[in-house]
Amino acid sequence: MSSSSTPQVITCKAAVAWGAGEPLVMEEVEVSPPHHSEIRIQVVSTSLCRSDLVAWESQTIFPRVFGHEASGIVESVGEGVTEFKEGDHVLAVFIGECMTCRLCKSGKTNICQALGLERKGVMHSDQKTRFSIKGKPVYHYCAVSSFSEYTVVHSGCAVKVSPNAPLERICLLSCGVAAGLGAAWNVADVSEGSTVVIFGLGTVGLSVAQGAKVRGASRIIGVDSNPQKCEKAKAFGITEVVNPNSCEEPIAQVIKRITDGGADFSFECIGDTDMITTALQSCCDGWGLTVTLGVPKVKPEMSAHYGLLLMGRTLKGSLYGGWKPKSDLPSLVEKYVNKEIKIDDYVTHDLPFDDINKAFNLMREGKCLRCVIHMPR
Amino acid sequence: MSSSSTPQVITCKAAVAWGAGEPLVMEEVEVSPPHHSEIRIQVVSTSLCRSDLVAWESQTIFPRVFGHEASGIVESVGEGVTEFKEGDHVLAVFIGECMTCRLCKSGKTNICQALGLERKGVMHSDQKTRFSIKGKPVYHYCAVSSFSEYTVVHSGCAVKVSPNAPLERICLLSCGVAAGLGAAWNVADVSEGSTVVIFGLGTVGLSVAQGAKVRGASRIIGVDSNPQKCEKAKAFGITEVVNPNSCEEPIAQVIKRITDGGADFSFECIGDTDMITTALQSCCDGWGLTVTLGVPKVKPEMSAHYGLLLMGRTLKGSLYGGWKPKSDLPSLVEKYVNKEIKIDDYVTHDLPFDDINKAFNLMREGKCLRCVIHMPR
Ligand SMILES: NC(=O)c1ccc[n+]([C@@H]2O[C@H](COP(=O)([O-])OP(=O)(O)OC[C@H]3O[C@@H](n4cnc5c(N)ncnc54)[C@H](O)[C@@H]3O)[C@@H](O)[C@H]2O)c1
Ligand SMILES: NC(=O)c1ccc[n+]([C@@H]2O[C@H](COP(=O)([O-])OP(=O)(O)OC[C@H]3O[C@@H](n4cnc5c(N)ncnc54)[C@H](O)[C@@H]3O)[C@@H](O)[C@H]2O)c1
Ligand SMILES: [Zn+2]
Ligand SMILES: [Zn+2]
Ligand SMILES: [Zn+2]
Ligand SMILES: [Zn+2]
Repeated sequence: MSSSSTPQVITCKAAVAWGAGEPLVMEEVEVSPPHHSEIRIQVVSTSLCRSDLVAWESQTIFPRVFGHEASGIVESVGEGVTEFKEGDHVLAVFIGECMTCRLCKSGKTNICQALGLERKGVMHSDQKTRFSIKGKPVYHYCAVSSFSEYTVVHSGCAVKVSPNAPLERICLLSCGVAAGLGAAWNVADVSEGSTVVIFGLGTVGLSVAQGAKVRGASRIIGVDSNPQKCEKAKAFGITEVVNPNSCEEPIAQVIKRITDGGADFSFECIGDTDMITTALQSCCDGWGLTVTLGVPKVKPEMSAHYGLLLMGRTLKGSLYGGWKPKSDLPSLVEKYVNKEIKIDDYVTHDLPFDDINKAFNLMREGKCLRCVIHMPR
Repeated sequence: MSSSSTPQVITCKAAVAWGAGEPLVMEEVEVSPPHHSEIRIQVVSTSLCRSDLVAWESQTIFPRVFGHEASGIVESVGEGVTEFKEGDHVLAVFIGECMTCRLCKSGKTNICQALGLERKGVMHSDQKTRFSIKGKPVYHYCAVSSFSEYTVVHSGCAVKVSPNAPLERICLLSCGVAAGLGAAWNVADVSEGSTVVIFGLGTVGLSVAQGAKVRGASRIIGVDSNPQKCEKAKAFGITEVVNPNSCEEPIAQVIKRITDGGADFSFECIGDTDMITTALQSCCDGWGLTVTLGVPKVKPEMSAHYGLLLMGRTLKGSLYGGWKPKSDLPSLVEKYVNKEIKIDDYVTHDLPFDDINKAFNLMREGKCLRCVIHMPR
């Protein structure tokens, strides 16, 4: 049952984006009580994912509270919520699992019809926001909005996790690390001895690498234009790196040459639809599988010569690595606690909430993997 | 062992294409003896596939002998050929199976590295032709070139079949009917109770329909702009037809509406890359699978919004339905002999060789499914 005291509006600090690409501003925001089926979370830690950066740079819904890799503690629950209670440790996730829609019940996908990707900056239930500044609406991002001391999420977009797991690290499982591992395990089903090529060696790409390594891939080739990323990559299972800027041939040609015809699996983890084409060209005839994860800032249409497909290639997308948040995330957290998967190594910076713009700059300049932002407590 | 008498050049009739879209001309051609690993076939029956038409209309290699759906009788064999002997009944296939390359041995694909799709109009072994007119080369098409009384093919591109199977019908298994059945069975693996949408109700699309019906698909929606095709379609398992010309909404929207969110499987059997996009849009979030079979005449690049993929769709190509000619074709022929699959119903016209241009016209005008061309005997 929900806690007995009726929740009140909370006034707290949030990092508000007022316009595309403009530095976030610390504002006092009002956070409404959770509505029916919602919970209000005190955010503990939140890391910056490239999707936040891309949306902030290119979308048009403002003012807005970004942030979607987040851990926290349940502060209060709305009517009808029995799954959570005050004090529960949770991860918030940008796609939900309602457990009752046709897709959730199919057992074939993690795409939920009821709590799918939210693109308008409002709550799933009533298409309104729970944030405001002096009564004027401030919009959400991806159903999470964790760049605020408190946030309200649909109870289907939160997952209770063990209180033994460190919240300041498992927030990376809210998106980036889980997205990469799942792309390798659930979506591509990378096989032992296979050759894998990963485009983009950020946290997502390097999590694909970790996943591929666990599966026993024999070659994991990383492609990144940032030499600093290439250096870091070996620690995550990357066996060789290629920097397109130091190649004279087109990169797909390089990959085909060094793999004797193309990789078994290729992954787009950059967010550039032209790289989907390159990834498809870089995998082999017959059974080459390309999985695309990136969220492009420009040019949402990918293109490919039909012959690449006819010769036996497959192209598929991966959203949150195929994980169903409620069904799958607790066991991923468990794996981390048991040291079966790595998370800590992706954290290059720990920053106080007040320095959040630093995280945006570090990512824009290609100087970090994940920056974890710690809320004041 | 090869037959003892040394084969000589044969002079015979062939329907030669002298230029793009120009009516074929009956010519006396010289057909060289089969080289090492090749066989010379007396063509018995050959049907016209849209791929011939598209190549004839849009390619630049001439003079040329088209035709690739073909049955015949081995006339002579080249050195090193032990698998065939004079008199064997065979089907010629546009992709071969060498049985020894990395891909053939993988067990994962029907794409052969050694005998893959031949696009230059020459033999795999020496990049030369076996046809000539007064000593001047006449080019091949797709390693088969059956619009000739005799043709030479690589022994890896021919399959021995039971002499009980009627050559004038099983030629359709050389391409169209097998391509469609295999796309449904091997590539898409259509499941019982599923919803399928097929774009293009020619022989290929209607063979996908036959395959989907055998698998127990509960709805098989056919899309074709030619009302005559729509009428014929029900006989092959199509449960409902949609003609884009009589819809006010975009066709993908129609399909999504009538299927409550999109089909489980969609197939592009037209040869229009824009229809690949439409097919992808027409299948459902979560697990929608689009298989593309078409060979486009213009615009070889397909495009798709990355979001279609991220929401769980998969796109793959199907060449010859995933069938490995030597390994799989004999049992398909068997299925036909045992009346487990239909072929005869796709034959709308039987024409003598001299009327071959009629077949091209019928297909161009959308007035046939398969025209079978019978060689003089
Ligand atoms: N599908 C999902 O579930 C999911 C989840 C999280 C993130 N994403 C998306 O995945 C992508 C990667 O996210 P991230 O957080 O790892 O980002 P990131 O910025 O940390 O990593 C991207 C990497 O790509 C490299 N790069 C950029 N342009 C390049 C080019 N032209 N050639 C080669 N390398 C290039 C950068 O140097 C960087 O290392 C983004 O598009 C993000 O939006 C998707
Ligand atoms: N992948 C393979 O293995 C393989 C094998 C054989 C043929 N093909 C290709 O498959 C395609 C179909 O071959 P086919 O022999 O069945 O051809 P076909 O001409 O008999 O059938 C094509 C059908 O598409 C319909 N059509 C054309 N434009 C349309 C449009 N805009 N909207 C709706 N319907 C439209 C036509 O009315 C026709 O019924 C061709 O592109 C051919 O080259 C591929
Ligand atoms: Zn659901
Ligand atoms: Zn993310
Ligand atoms: Zn082979
Ligand atoms: Zn064909």
